[in-house]
Parts: sequence; structure tokens; C-alpha cells
Amino acid sequence: MTVDEFARQLRLGHTTSARVTEDCLERIAALDPALNAFIHVMADEARQQAAEADRDLANGRDHGPLHGVPISIKDLFDIAGTATTAASRVREGHLATTDASAITRLRQAGAVFIGKTNLHEFAFGTTNEDSAFGPAHHPLDQRRSPGGSSGGSAISVATGMALATLGTDTGGSIRIPAAACGIVGLKPSVGELPTEGVVPLSRTMDHVGPLTQTVTDAWHVFHALRGDTVVKPLSAPDMRTLKFGVPRGYFFDLLDDNVRAQIARMEAALTTAGASIVDVDIAQAALTPAVYVHISFGEAAAYHAHTLETMPERYTKPVRLRLEMARRVLAEDYARAIYGRDALREHVDAALSGVDALLLPTLPIPAPLIGASTARVGDRDEPVRNLTLRLTQLFNVTGHPALSLPCGETDEGLPVGLQLVGTRNQTDALLHVAKAVEAAIA
Amino acid sequence: MTVDEFARQLRLGHTTSARVTEDCLERIAALDPALNAFIHVMADEARQQAAEADRDLANGRDHGPLHGVPISIKDLFDIAGTATTAASRVREGHLATTDASAITRLRQAGAVFIGKTNLHEFAFGTTNEDSAFGPAHHPLDQRRSPGGSSGGSAISVATGMALATLGTDTGGSIRIPAAACGIVGLKPSVGELPTEGVVPLSRTMDHVGPLTQTVTDAWHVFHALRGDTVVKPLSAPDMRTLKFGVPRGYFFDLLDDNVRAQIARMEAALTTAGASIVDVDIAQAALTPAVYVHISFGEAAAYHAHTLETMPERYTKPVRLRLEMARRVLAEDYARAIYGRDALREHVDAALSGVDALLLPTLPIPAPLIGASTARVGDRDEPVRNLTLRLTQLFNVTGHPALSLPCGETDEGLPVGLQLVGTRNQTDALLHVAKAVEAAIA
Repeated sequence: MTVDEFARQLRLGHTTSARVTEDCLERIAALDPALNAFIHVMADEARQQAAEADRDLANGRDHGPLHGVPISIKDLFDIAGTATTAASRVREGHLATTDASAITRLRQAGAVFIGKTNLHEFAFGTTNEDSAFGPAHHPLDQRRSPGGSSGGSAISVATGMALATLGTDTGGSIRIPAAACGIVGLKPSVGELPTEGVVPLSRTMDHVGPLTQTVTDAWHVFHALRGDTVVKPLSAPDMRTLKFGVPRGYFFDLLDDNVRAQIARMEAALTTAGASIVDVDIAQAALTPAVYVHISFGEAAAYHAHTLETMPERYTKPVRLRLEMARRVLAEDYARAIYGRDALREHVDAALSGVDALLLPTLPIPAPLIGASTARVGDRDEPVRNLTLRLTQLFNVTGHPALSLPCGETDEGLPVGLQLVGTRNQTDALLHVAKAVEAAIA
Repeated sequence: MTVDEFARQLRLGHTTSARVTEDCLERIAALDPALNAFIHVMADEARQQAAEADRDLANGRDHGPLHGVPISIKDLFDIAGTATTAASRVREGHLATTDASAITRLRQAGAVFIGKTNLHEFAFGTTNEDSAFGPAHHPLDQRRSPGGSSGGSAISVATGMALATLGTDTGGSIRIPAAACGIVGLKPSVGELPTEGVVPLSRTMDHVGPLTQTVTDAWHVFHALRGDTVVKPLSAPDMRTLKFGVPRGYFFDLLDDNVRAQIARMEAALTTAGASIVDVDIAQAALTPAVYVHISFGEAAAYHAHTLETMPERYTKPVRLRLEMARRVLAEDYARAIYGRDALREHVDAALSGVDALLLPTLPIPAPLIGASTARVGDRDEPVRNLTLRLTQLFNVTGHPALSLPCGETDEGLPVGLQLVGTRNQTDALLHVAKAVEAAIA
């Protein structure tokens, strides 16, 4: 059931928050031993919150679209009274005393917190393999990764263990698992949603955002996170009024054949529906990985330096190794990267001028196998980390809003994701466009 | 003669651009062998420009307040057809093919370029001692430094070798020599004036601005640099309507007695004139040097890395040594510094809320002796570099507009500078306040 459908059923008296919460808890009990999506299931608290939501509604207190909705929370957000593990032993003994700002807003919107989800340790990875609580597993093929770092979050929504989830995205950590698991993931415009009370990875690129089943659900969670109390319904513009820019080159030169075919099929569907599609160029896009790595490594090192010195053995080995490398990055390289960021931001702005959104793949490959350090693309073996970040990280560097939508399957039945990128500070406009695209693909 | 006075005399037919340009060239010939303010005197070009300015005016083409005004240019700005030496042998063989944006605007405003002035090599120092062309000397005491890095610029205006000058300020390089030489120096709000065609030091903190004899002259040059064609005259608000915040603590805890006395005298003068003066706090101000050094070193290293590797012997020894240190700064320290910058910006904003400007010393000491690595303040010997940057660098970190005004003399007859700091992006408002302060002190 989607958030939107639940909201309707709830107000028709056809269901209750208590019932849907029990459904989620039952699914967790049934599925999670195999999938490992949750670090901490908040069954008692969730039941209490659900009962309260039902009482409130019975007493005429309606908190809006998220009222009574069971939502899972990436275990990087502080919820008062619980540990924020960041999937790391470094955080042993932690107990949050206050809610993260995003949690406060979801609470005000009436959400029910069903549990804290598994992630790549400290969000510093794209596969969810390195976690103090063990890897999370893809619901459709447990040998595979659900993507990351918000992997447990994506699984929980894809399998109905939660109706929506709260993730974070520093290089693609919302969009990558959304694409890999076949759901919607939204990284808003930079600075739009509060990051207070979230364990940081890279402060200038960290974004908070929802993973949901539909674009309409993303709209509801996004506006609750913004603290908006009155929100217009999401409407889809006429596809014949929309113009999309497809950035060929870097974003299409290293793609799995199945991914390429699904994106082409979707382009054809949009054209059939009346959209106009043009090729656009994002100048210097190939510089993205170098810019991203220096900014993200420099900022990650700034945060982790102290614990790397005092408790290095508590990190998982791959994350520790990468953080130790990050500590060697020089300020001169970081400075060059921020000049590069300014240039790339202008290039993306330029590519967006005259179109409603950019349209490109989210992930160049389907969900990778757990334990594989490389994946095959055409006749090349490429590092999984590079591949997974390849198409998403640019928009963390530049701050443009970006959303991943499910867009067909590979021959093996694994989900493919389509990425839409909008004008800076116009996340609402992007969601309207995404709603139209979602309808045209369906 | 001030710019403003010259403009009046010119239009009354009492003088010509040719005449004042000759006066400047004569003064250069007489004084500069001892002071070493100029790297390159542009006598022929200046005479041509002056003749053209006089012809234009005779033909009714009036380019505004800078029409025919001899202006000197820090040798960090490109002027097409001349070398931009940056006072460094690293730049040997350079020839600018186009004008820097600031030069283009001054040219459009009718200015006459009298020559390129000496500076601390690559603007990376505050005393003008390290220059491929030898140190510049203070006009009132040649054993002393004029301050830096825009030292030659400040000398040229203080001695009438130019009516105004164009400098740059990354940590105080306009305000420090303005204070040391007893003239006005303006660092506008960050991003307000174009830095294209200026050899960079630290791209996020580099500012372009004027050094002049009066606040009104700074107003004229500032607006020409902005490319404004119609500018209202500068008026002084009633002192009884103005409120100043004095940031005690860090900004007053390490001051030469003479400087302290002059600032106190000026506070009394403003109070007598009806101003209201309150103490304010800039939280965490003592973090400023650490934030400044990591940002400036990281960015300077990004620019100089290549030439440090290919032609290290061409740098002066002290500048090379500092740049080699800069190359060792880590990204994690730079990242922490930019988080610190965000905090400091908010703290300065907070200190400015409710007052028209902050009021503090520009330099804690009078012009230092050439060759001295330390200066005595009270019973302590402090490094000259730390002292000279101490009170100015914060506003390069945060981007607030700041101006230095002459404010009395030490017992030895050396100038003291008063610094006024305004609200971000409100440089005009700061100049209005400065005009009133200038009148009240006089």
C-alpha cells in the first residue's frame, strides 16, 4: 500500500494506523532475518505511536498525509532515546537525547517510526556491504546488494516493511538503492532540508530525502520534511508541454546493455506521449569523479580524524582504509575541487536552460553481487564503487535536485532506474515533472 | 589634490588631466628612487591618456568623476600590453594581452594609468619586503615598511604620485598599507567587484578595491569599478542617528599603546558628535587566524603548486618557504576551516545586528621596521605577520565590507588606522557611515 492510498483508506475508515503498523511489523518478522534491512525494530514505540495516531484521528486531530504512516529511518538520524549506530562499532554506547530536525518534522506530521535501517557504515559506501550489523540483501536476489548507502531503507519500502523511509544522499545514497530496488528516491536541492542531528559524511554535499513507492508519496514526505503544513496536491503537467534534455557522452558511455535498452524504451514512451526530447551537453562532466572524491574525502576526514586515531579497530576494514586514504588528501586538491564545483554547477545550469529536466540513467548497472569489487560493463571490468557513483555524484557536487524513478527491468528481472534532474531550488517543479513521467511510463 | 577636488578644478577649467599627470610623474621622478613604490611607470601611455581625456572633455565627452584622474595599479592586475609581474621573477616573460575587468571599468570611467606599483610577491605577505624589485619604503620613515601587500599603491597615494590606486585585499592587503600610510582603503563585500585578470592568491578571499585620500574618493573609484555610470553624491548621515558596535576582546587585547589611545580618542570624538557606541561580541573571533591560514594556504598552494615544482628558485625565499608549507596543508584542515568560516560569518552578522557598523583598529601596531620579524606590543614580542593580519583577516574570511580610515598618529608621528565593518552586500551603506566618521574625526 502506498502512503497516498493508506491516507485515503484511513480516512474512509477502511484501515487504521495500528493495522498497517502491525502489517509492517509482521513483514519485518517474516522477511528481515534474510534481508537484514533493520538494525533496530521499534515495535513497542511504533505500536504506541500508531494507537495515538488512531486516537487523534478519532478525536478530529488530523496531522495530514503522513498521519499514522509507518516510516523507517536510516540509522544515521538521531531519534531521542535510541542509539544512532551509523552501522558502526565506533558509535557503541551512543544514545540520542534529542530528535534530528527531520525526525521532529516527521513526528509533527504524525508519522510512526517503525525502526532504524541498515546502511553502509557511516554512509561511506554504495553497497551496504560494510556494516557492523552485516550486509543487507537485495529482496529479489539475496546474493546481490540493495545498493547503498541507504540500502536497508530501500529494502524496507520495496518489501512493504515500511510505507516510506528517510535516507541521506551524499553521492547517490538515496538514488542508488532506490534504482537498485525499483522504488522512487528523491535528493532535493542542496540546503533545502535540515541536516541537524544527522551523522555527517561530507557536510557540503550531504542531503536528506525520502525513498517511497511513488512520486506522490515522495511529494508528501518531502513537504512534511520541509515543515509545510498546507500542501497542494501533486498534479502532472501535460506531457506535450514538457521538454527533456538528455546529456549524452559521459552519462551514456559506460552502461549495461539492459540499462541502455530500458532508458531508450522510456525515451520512446515519453516521445510517444508528446514530450520533446533534445540532446544536451554537460561540459567537463568527466571531471566529476575527481571533484567529488577530493571534496567528499576531505570532509569525511575532517569528521573522522579523531576516531580514526582513537579507535581505528572499530571501523570495518574497507571503510577504515578509505578514510585513512582520505586523511592524506591535500588542501590544494580540495581547493581545486571547489573551483571545479563552481564550474560544474554552471555547466549543469547551462544544460538545464531551456528544458524542464535532464533525463539520464541513475545506475549504469543493475544491483551488483555482494562481495564483487568489479562489475562487467560491455567488455570492461569496472570498480563497483566507481560505477555506482558515476551518474549520481555530480548533483551532490552541484546541489541540483535529482530523483530516481523505476523504469523497467533487466532480462534477469532486476530493476532499472531513470534519473531526472531539475533546476536548483525548484524541487517542487521536478516532482511535478516526475509525476508526469511516472504516468507516461506506467 | 583629491580625486574629488581635481574633478571640480578640471571642470572649472583650472587644471587639466595633462597637468596633474605631469605633476604625478614629477613626484615619481623625485620620490620614487628612495621609496620604490613603482615597478613600472607608464609615462608615455599616461600622457597620451591624459591628452585624450582633455580632448574628450573639450569636446563635451565627460566620463564622470574619474575622468582624467591619474591612478596607479597594483602590479597584480593585467593591463593589455604590459607585464603583470606580481613582484615575482616567476612571472618573467609575461605580457598581458587583455585588460583585467577592473581595468576595463576604470578605462571606461576615463582614468589615466600612471604605472604599476610594487607589492609583496604574489600578494603573499603584509610588509612589501619580499619583492623581486626590492622592498618599498614608508614615506615618513624609510626604515619602515609601508605595509602590504599593496604597499607601493599606498605610498603612491600618500605622496601624491597618483590621485588614487587600485589594490587587492586577501587578508588585509588594502587596509593594512592604508592604515600604515595614513590613507583610506576599502575592501568591498565579497564578490562585488570582478577579480578576472588579477593574479589570484586565495580565490574565495581575494577582493579588489581602492586606496584613496578620502572616503569620497573611495566612493568614486568603487562605483567606477562596479561599472555604475550614474552615481548619487556621497552624503554623510547625521552622527546622532548612528550606532557603532565595538568588538572588545580579541580585537583590543593586543594593541600598541599609541594605537589604543588614538582609537579611544576617536570613540570619544564620535560620542561627542552624538553617535551611540556599544560593546558587541564577535563569538569565536580567536579562531580567525587558524581558519584564515588553512583557507589561504590551501588555495595559494592550489595556484602555485606547478611553478613551485618547475621554477622554485624564482620565488623570494620567504614566500617560497611559506608556499612550500602551504602545500602540506591537509584537506581535512581546509574542510574544518570552511565550517569555521560559516560559523564566523554568522557571528559577525550577529555582532552587526542592531548597529550601523563595527568600529575597531585596522592595525594593532604602527608601520613595522623593514627586516624585523617581530614587533613589540606591551611586554611581548609578536611575529609581524600575525600582528598585521590580526584585525583584518576575519572580514576576508566572512566577506563583510571593511574600510580603513586615518585616525591620528603615534607619538613618533606614524599614522594609525581605524577600521569600520559593515553589513554584507551593503558597501554603499558602509561608505556613507565612513563619510560621517571622517567628518567627525577631522
